[in-house]
Amino acid sequence: MSEEVKLLGINGSPASRRVEWALRIKGVEYELIEEDLQNKSPLLLQSNPVHKKIPVLLHNGKPIAESLVIVEYIDETFDGPSILPKDPYDRADARFWAKFLDEKCLPAVWKALWSKGEEQEKDKEEAYEVLKVLDNELKDKKYFGGEKIGFVDIAANFVGFWVGIVEEATGVVLVTSEKFPHFCTWREEYLNCSQVKENMPNREMLLGYFKGRVLAAAAPK
Amino acid sequence: MSEEVKLLGINGSPASRRVEWALRIKGVEYELIEEDLQNKSPLLLQSNPVHKKIPVLLHNGKPIAESLVIVEYIDETFDGPSILPKDPYDRADARFWAKFLDEKCLPAVWKALWSKGEEQEKDKEEAYEVLKVLDNELKDKKYFGGEKIGFVDIAANFVGFWVGIVEEATGVVLVTSEKFPHFCTWREEYLNCSQVKENMPNREMLLGYFKGRVLAAAAPK
Repeated sequence: MSEEVKLLGINGSPASRRVEWALRIKGVEYELIEEDLQNKSPLLLQSNPVHKKIPVLLHNGKPIAESLVIVEYIDETFDGPSILPKDPYDRADARFWAKFLDEKCLPAVWKALWSKGEEQEKDKEEAYEVLKVLDNELKDKKYFGGEKIGFVDIAANFVGFWVGIVEEATGVVLVTSEKFPHFCTWREEYLNCSQVKENMPNREMLLGYFKGRVLAAAAPK
Repeated sequence: MSEEVKLLGINGSPASRRVEWALRIKGVEYELIEEDLQNKSPLLLQSNPVHKKIPVLLHNGKPIAESLVIVEYIDETFDGPSILPKDPYDRADARFWAKFLDEKCLPAVWKALWSKGEEQEKDKEEAYEVLKVLDNELKDKKYFGGEKIGFVDIAANFVGFWVGIVEEATGVVLVTSEKFPHFCTWREEYLNCSQVKENMPNREMLLGYFKGRVLAAAAPK
């Protein structure tokens, strides 16, 4: 049976890119169907009625939602290099870190990047704390997964790629090699590895998008 | 090699009980080491340095944290009945619902249970919305997993057991069979199934605990 793989996603979304990276690691051909979040398609609403959010993978018509759930599905369904480690203990460790990224790291870093005035110092401290945890985890590793890109590296695409762009747009700089040397070494390696490099959204487009948000936030209501 | 399985947990914690239920489904013998959250043990702090939280499973001395990560680890490591479905699509579906329970359902329901005054109606409406989603998901099923208790049912132990007790303590009733008939049928089945029934915290103890919290919240500061 020929496989039909479609992704309801958005070019510039980290969640959507996680799925694309997983598909590319496996060598799966897919069609990206760009959603307009201002005007969601009936297919998206019907495929993810609970959250009404991208990304949704449609595999032979069957929908799967939630980016990390989709990545695990891709790993379990298609041949090709493993995304999660094979050993159950290492798999648990990978799931632990992916969860940490989504539940602790991303909210704290995102908040600090957009924070202003009195709250900024406190928010920055909280972001530093989670980034320090990542930095420490990376101290003896090339990637989170060891020698090659894996589940946690895919989950970490927001801190690996997007954060630097938002820093440039907002002028709030969180990540420096003085503070987070291991994290910065990982990031350089990561951004230069072929799987990541060849499947990035356009940096200038994203920078423009975030600069637009900065201006919109500053405009009088 | 003989297996040494220890659980750093708390008798009355839903997260900790998820792990115990998974171990019981697999027929794994384990030792529960009760933590005192006012005075966390060095073993807990060293086993889960990132979150410093229970539950932590120690399998032959190796620590695993985060309740649902532990449940997947148990399923992949020990023989016995499957907890997650075998089919990758059904596994993705189970992970989707477990995530929904933790990220959407529990926060909304918990908030509504403790809400007062003007905010209460809004918070209740939000809780009803997520409970309606669960109710709908259960309309043609005995358990979330189908004919037998599985991953999502384990993840749902808070709404299955604890919510009724908190309702009794706070007097805020969210779950009625008029509003959520399928959910209530599931809950009755669930509370009477042997795996759940035989491994419950003491209801009276929990009721006392939540009544204590109600009084403490009402006391002048």
